Amino acid sequence: VISAGIVGATGYVGSELIRLLVNHNGVKISALQSSSSEGEKIEKIYGNLKGIVPLKCSSIDEVIDSSEVVFLSLPSGMSEDIAQKCLEKGILCIDMGGDFRLKDEEDYKTWYGNSFQNKELHEKAVYGLPELNRDSIKNACMIANPGCYPTSIELGLMPALKHKLIDLYGIICDSKSGTTGAGKSPTASTHFPECNESLSPYKAGTHRHTPEIEQVLGSIAGEKMKVTFVPHLLPINRGILSTVYCSMKSGLKGPEIYEVYKEFYKDEPFVRVLEYGQYACIKNVKYSNYCDISLHPDERTGKLIIVSAIDNMVKGAAGQAIQNMNIALGLREQGGLYMVPPAN
Amino acid sequence: VISAGIVGATGYVGSELIRLLVNHNGVKISALQSSSSEGEKIEKIYGNLKGIVPLKCSSIDEVIDSSEVVFLSLPSGMSEDIAQKCLEKGILCIDMGGDFRLKDEEDYKTWYGNSFQNKELHEKAVYGLPELNRDSIKNACMIANPGCYPTSIELGLMPALKHKLIDLYGIICDSKSGTTGAGKSPTASTHFPECNESLSPYKAGTHRHTPEIEQVLGSIAGEKMKVTFVPHLLPINRGILSTVYCSMKSGLKGPEIYEVYKEFYKDEPFVRVLEYGQYACIKNVKYSNYCDISLHPDERTGKLIIVSAIDNMVKGAAGQAIQNMNIALGLREQGGLYMVPPAN
Amino acid sequence: VISAGIVGATGYVGSELIRLLVNHNGVKISALQSSSSEGEKIEKIYGNLKGIVPLKCSSIDEVIDSSEVVFLSLPSGMSEDIAQKCLEKGILCIDMGGDFRLKDEEDYKTWYGNSFQNKELHEKAVYGLPELNRDSIKNACMIANPGCYPTSIELGLMPALKHKLIDLYGIICDSKSGTTGAGKSPTASTHFPECNESLSPYKAGTHRHTPEIEQVLGSIAGEKMKVTFVPHLLPINRGILSTVYCSMKSGLKGPEIYEVYKEFYKDEPFVRVLEYGQYACIKNVKYSNYCDISLHPDERTGKLIIVSAIDNMVKGAAGQAIQNMNIALGLREQGGLYMVPPAN
Amino acid sequence: VISAGIVGATGYVGSELIRLLVNHNGVKISALQSSSSEGEKIEKIYGNLKGIVPLKCSSIDEVIDSSEVVFLSLPSGMSEDIAQKCLEKGILCIDMGGDFRLKDEEDYKTWYGNSFQNKELHEKAVYGLPELNRDSIKNACMIANPGCYPTSIELGLMPALKHKLIDLYGIICDSKSGTTGAGKSPTASTHFPECNESLSPYKAGTHRHTPEIEQVLGSIAGEKMKVTFVPHLLPINRGILSTVYCSMKSGLKGPEIYEVYKEFYKDEPFVRVLEYGQYACIKNVKYSNYCDISLHPDERTGKLIIVSAIDNMVKGAAGQAIQNMNIALGLREQGGLYMVPPAN
Repeated sequence: VISAGIVGATGYVGSELIRLLVNHNGVKISALQSSSSEGEKIEKIYGNLKGIVPLKCSSIDEVIDSSEVVFLSLPSGMSEDIAQKCLEKGILCIDMGGDFRLKDEEDYKTWYGNSFQNKELHEKAVYGLPELNRDSIKNACMIANPGCYPTSIELGLMPALKHKLIDLYGIICDSKSGTTGAGKSPTASTHFPECNESLSPYKAGTHRHTPEIEQVLGSIAGEKMKVTFVPHLLPINRGILSTVYCSMKSGLKGPEIYEVYKEFYKDEPFVRVLEYGQYACIKNVKYSNYCDISLHPDERTGKLIIVSAIDNMVKGAAGQAIQNMNIALGLREQGGLYMVPPAN
Repeated sequence: VISAGIVGATGYVGSELIRLLVNHNGVKISALQSSSSEGEKIEKIYGNLKGIVPLKCSSIDEVIDSSEVVFLSLPSGMSEDIAQKCLEKGILCIDMGGDFRLKDEEDYKTWYGNSFQNKELHEKAVYGLPELNRDSIKNACMIANPGCYPTSIELGLMPALKHKLIDLYGIICDSKSGTTGAGKSPTASTHFPECNESLSPYKAGTHRHTPEIEQVLGSIAGEKMKVTFVPHLLPINRGILSTVYCSMKSGLKGPEIYEVYKEFYKDEPFVRVLEYGQYACIKNVKYSNYCDISLHPDERTGKLIIVSAIDNMVKGAAGQAIQNMNIALGLREQGGLYMVPPAN
Repeated sequence: VISAGIVGATGYVGSELIRLLVNHNGVKISALQSSSSEGEKIEKIYGNLKGIVPLKCSSIDEVIDSSEVVFLSLPSGMSEDIAQKCLEKGILCIDMGGDFRLKDEEDYKTWYGNSFQNKELHEKAVYGLPELNRDSIKNACMIANPGCYPTSIELGLMPALKHKLIDLYGIICDSKSGTTGAGKSPTASTHFPECNESLSPYKAGTHRHTPEIEQVLGSIAGEKMKVTFVPHLLPINRGILSTVYCSMKSGLKGPEIYEVYKEFYKDEPFVRVLEYGQYACIKNVKYSNYCDISLHPDERTGKLIIVSAIDNMVKGAAGQAIQNMNIALGLREQGGLYMVPPAN
Repeated sequence: VISAGIVGATGYVGSELIRLLVNHNGVKISALQSSSSEGEKIEKIYGNLKGIVPLKCSSIDEVIDSSEVVFLSLPSGMSEDIAQKCLEKGILCIDMGGDFRLKDEEDYKTWYGNSFQNKELHEKAVYGLPELNRDSIKNACMIANPGCYPTSIELGLMPALKHKLIDLYGIICDSKSGTTGAGKSPTASTHFPECNESLSPYKAGTHRHTPEIEQVLGSIAGEKMKVTFVPHLLPINRGILSTVYCSMKSGLKGPEIYEVYKEFYKDEPFVRVLEYGQYACIKNVKYSNYCDISLHPDERTGKLIIVSAIDNMVKGAAGQAIQNMNIALGLREQGGLYMVPPAN
């Protein structure tokens, strides 16, 4: 049984890691760190965990000393030092934030405003999208867990890019996310009466997930790419639905595209390509690690519409991190991730 | 005081017409027709109207005999005969559905599956988007009230097309609508546990509002146009937010575009162009006749992102119909439409 | 035209007063005060008001100097001094908070932890429930606007107490409120992901509205009374539904009780007693000043179940305050309050 | 590995049984019956099950022939014959509906309008509330799974009744349920725009769960009892919160009551008595088999307020049925029920 620790355990991503790890029979939670709640019982902070997780929040050192894998769930720019310590001790480190996702330091400076302190660490970091990088993840000691929006968009576009079904220019990614993506701290935009019964885009063309999406799509396509990415805040708890618009190579028909996707993902345990004619929706993936993808070619305008749905907290965060851990540690890839999405 | 009647008064659009007309001091409701509820008090069907509207549902003839303006809120394909009767009697007729919106009979056949029975009537029908057609509406006897999605998209794109700020090709319209747009009849997709906490696109590239959008945008641009239009069902009661993506003419900057829009709509009572940097959202227009528009040029990718928000039941249906009635009958254009959107 | 000013205009109650006063044709808003936003345009803070209310936030003195009626919407304990100034200048003062609702200083000390500073002021203050105190309100210079929960409960019980249909002991008030009742400041309990898809009681038996309810019910009954009051936080924006349980005097039948209620409220413009067999619900009163009441005698157990629904921001706050203003200033009681509740 | 079959598998309770049984490692699903969808793949009906449950809907006979335990999830009055067949074949039968819950045929006639056809079967049926009847369930061949509302109320009152902490008269049960409790068929009251942003009581004092609650409480108290029970429809998917009001025996203090409850449930795997001062809420039990109970004595009025929260689809239906199955078949009681409630 593997010992897993969480640094930054009291945020929503941390609490979701706990929810999933409790039911992973190859893993036990060794320690939980929280800078704001050191010494407090986790069940005091998360009433849902009452009677289930008898741990108190402890320190970073206690997490590192007691764990074989450490998940870092921290504000931007705070993971490098802890990651370095993990690696020195031979502990697998999985970073949930954006510190290690971008390979190009210039991009990192532009979008995050910081430089890399420890470049070697960034070189070691593997981008943890199993459907793209499973082999590298197997040997990784440092994993950058993908962003939630990028996960939905990259899985949606990967087969089309690999099989050159679409143009690389002018791709539009219109994404909609539930409010857990905004984190646990109350803010004006997630205050119930402000957010409920509304919908709003935010950071149109300027969200930090943009360079991550472009880096990964570009590496798949073998060519630099740009995308227009607009996220929206949905008045629901969980889930991301991305509607992606791109130009089909001429002559392609819907059923052919469908066959490419079906074949591409046929062995993937967590990607479901829907029957031709059906629509991916958030409901069918909630609380699970699935990514549902549906395809809608608009032959009238030559656009291929790809719809991709995930639970932002699971495949978009904690679930994918556990999937990465399983792969890196040689456990069964689905371990801890057998949750069936509830019908509602 | 003008006498107004409603045919199809017990649907959601009918009930919203009632809500607004009650507070229009130049109009009184003369009669309400409902084929399913003839003889019943409207307040039995709509508890919100208790003590406010003492009318019973009556017949089409009673509506026509007692009204100077008639609103038709009927299933597709059922308005022609009643409209004809209204016109013969010199009654202003405003059709809330899609029967008179398309000018090209071929389009109508393709998307609605029917032919025009009474072509003269279709020629008389004016497309009731006041910001585009105010002068024609003044003299109209037959008004085709625009669809909800088209209203949001057309208002969003009109200044850019008139001022040739954008390319006519490759426009993407990603729209999200509340559930009242689906009408009053319970269905599987609007059953609370199916719809709540989810999001799903539907009719991607195949929604009947597509040819309406293309007809209007094309007439503004002076050239045939195609758009890719994907609607989504939001788990909220009211509101449409359309995120429209198009390619900016090169060299244009955000502030210039903003000035064009501000100038274009400066005398419009119901279109609000938001300050540069703000985002249109559904919350700020709910229960009112406003259309809020915000502009987000993505200079990195050359795309102009236009966000347009309306209340689908007001500016997207009943409110716009009353605005049209006011214009056609020479009443003050804002009559009955002074509602301030509530903060939440 | 009366000049109305608001002190504390940027809270939710303040913004709702603005929404309603804009449509009151006997009143104009003279000035808006906000300590946190002095000098800022109100439409910057409330995007819904864009283009509608061209005012900037100003000071308390400016409000007092320019107004014939002043609404105070302030945190607990801050109204006395400003109210005193208003009265000295002959300005009608309506306090939206709890500072003047309790007549018994001991109660005030027990539940609010403060003493009365200016006892004369408290003696002058009239409890602004028009259905109970219309005559005193007519001559009032200082009005304590009732709490939201108390309004729903007092209107629900008033006829039964006046007509001695029920026992005074053991009354249970189970109330459920939307989140706007918790105000504009983001908190953990109104953070969207915490509040959505949940329900929780709070302050069971200890909410400050308890002594207010008891004072008013006791004054109606002519005898001291106690009630058990438990509020719950509903994941909706607006509305309060109170389910009140009391013991019927023996021998009473449902239809008799219904007749008493119908007669009692027959001339009230804002109380609607539903037909026997129907259920009051929040939907039918949202965004309006109505209070809907339904009656459900459970003859098997001898309990009378009274259900009372209001919009907490309208009849539970801003609407009732305007109703009080209208009465006190001799305006038509419904002025500014003709809003028809939308069907959804 | 036990073979489990479901009759009526395409309703919400059926689909929730599937979700939970898939993760029960001592059980496999043998067959699913649906009269409306015979021959169809279950994943066509429930998109959430895509790729997880490869079964087609079959017939009642196929379910009976292939199963060691059969769950009946049928409309009222349809379970007797199938239950009889199960018993004849020695198959454990668990009825999810109300057909076998009431022991007194007169009650059944009064509230359900039917007679018992097969009285012997009713005598054999054990009421499946494990915390009350674990020993009888161990030997049961026929289990009546409790109603959702009764489960929450009975667990909330059981310790108080067993330990005689409260009066038996005048108990008020004010319950609030999510919409999945109303089932899968679209209706006017669960149509999204009707139900969302509202709250309404229904069947006040007349709901069929009333005699069930009274039967169970009476058997615990050793005396006939009546309760006033009012359910409300909440605009959420899942969960029941019951707020129960009763009169405390004089002299009792909160902490004592808390100790009784804590002791009473200390070995129960699925009942969590919250720390004194905390409030039970739906959020903390969603998607899990827990029942959270909090206690709030109102010493001022002598009332004990008990708050009880469950997920209506899990502890209120499918989860409790699996718990019963585990007990009756000698499996580990928590089998298939380890789900951790998500934080949101």
